[in-house]
Amino acid sequence: MRRPIRRRKKDSWVKIIEAYAEKVLATPDPESFVTASVGRFEVDLGGIPGDRHYGLMRPADVRQKHLYPRGTMIANRRQISILSIEDNADIAEKLEVETIEPEWLGANILIRGVPELTLLPRGARLLFESGAALICEGENEPCIGPGEVIAKHYGRDAKFAARFVKAAHKRRGIVCSVELPGTISAGDQVRIVLP
Amino acid sequence: MRRPIRRRKKDSWVKIIEAYAEKVLATPDPESFVTASVGRFEVDLGGIPGDRHYGLMRPADVRQKHLYPRGTMIANRRQISILSIEDNADIAEKLEVETIEPEWLGANILIRGVPELTLLPRGARLLFESGAALICEGENEPCIGPGEVIAKHYGRDAKFAARFVKAAHKRRGIVCSVELPGTISAGDQVRIVLP
Repeated sequence: MRRPIRRRKKDSWVKIIEAYAEKVLATPDPESFVTASVGRFEVDLGGIPGDRHYGLMRPADVRQKHLYPRGTMIANRRQISILSIEDNADIAEKLEVETIEPEWLGANILIRGVPELTLLPRGARLLFESGAALICEGENEPCIGPGEVIAKHYGRDAKFAARFVKAAHKRRGIVCSVELPGTISAGDQVRIVLP
Repeated sequence: MRRPIRRRKKDSWVKIIEAYAEKVLATPDPESFVTASVGRFEVDLGGIPGDRHYGLMRPADVRQKHLYPRGTMIANRRQISILSIEDNADIAEKLEVETIEPEWLGANILIRGVPELTLLPRGARLLFESGAALICEGENEPCIGPGEVIAKHYGRDAKFAARFVKAAHKRRGIVCSVELPGTISAGDQVRIVLP
């Protein structure tokens, strides 16, 4: 189902941001968080079937250490990772490298048109032209893993990898969960509705 | 599993509110939203099995009219309704009635110790002493249904029912979804962790 993304008159009280899905990606190898462009994917209530982060539940990790013992099975709200082209360019500039590819950061969707995507509030809705809709679950807190992938690509050391965490602060994008199952395609218009 | 709810030294950077579950309730008749005290219940990823609002998915309603056509099946984030004793007393005072029972508002949990429960941000976690944990999904927007139940109880008219919506603004409590399946019991200590 493709549906028009238009701001209707009766929506005028709703805060809406228009954006585009530049790339959609998934993990070809579940052993690694690195993603590859797939053109389109279907999502259900657990995320992207076959992806590393797919599932209705997931084990609690270090991010929930003040809430649950590590490994406790909890609802999976970190199903889909979204980055903005603009945030990525900022990280690259800070690290003084040519480019930061969304694949290296394990992104599932690369968005164009929302420079401050990482600051999107929890509860914002992202409605994709191809039919699916996601809920923003908040900022993706940077960890060193992607820094190591970037360091390897540019032949740099562990110190460089550690710099990524700082450079990506408030620029690492957001994590989302699925509200409306359906399709997400590269090139989709995305209507972002603020809560 | 009962576990101690204590603020540990290493949690000192985490904002925590201590509260108590005064009552836990569920819908005995799925035709009505009115709840009845049950003493304790188990929750899974869909909420309270057998309750009117149970399910991994639910049909979109008037609250999502700017997002989805009514009846579209979306992820159910309105599984469990929580009220505070303090908010309820405020509503009763505004309506000049003796009491507002949580049953009339379809509450599943009545909390003591958090006067401004309705203002709790999305993403706050509620950890119950008996084992389960919930995620705050935001304010429950008042509608006229509970106003009609209150009006009927006090032998008042439709005008009185409409006054409820205004009196309950920012006092109608929150809706939650389940993060950690388990038990919730009347008398539980509740540790509320702000995002």
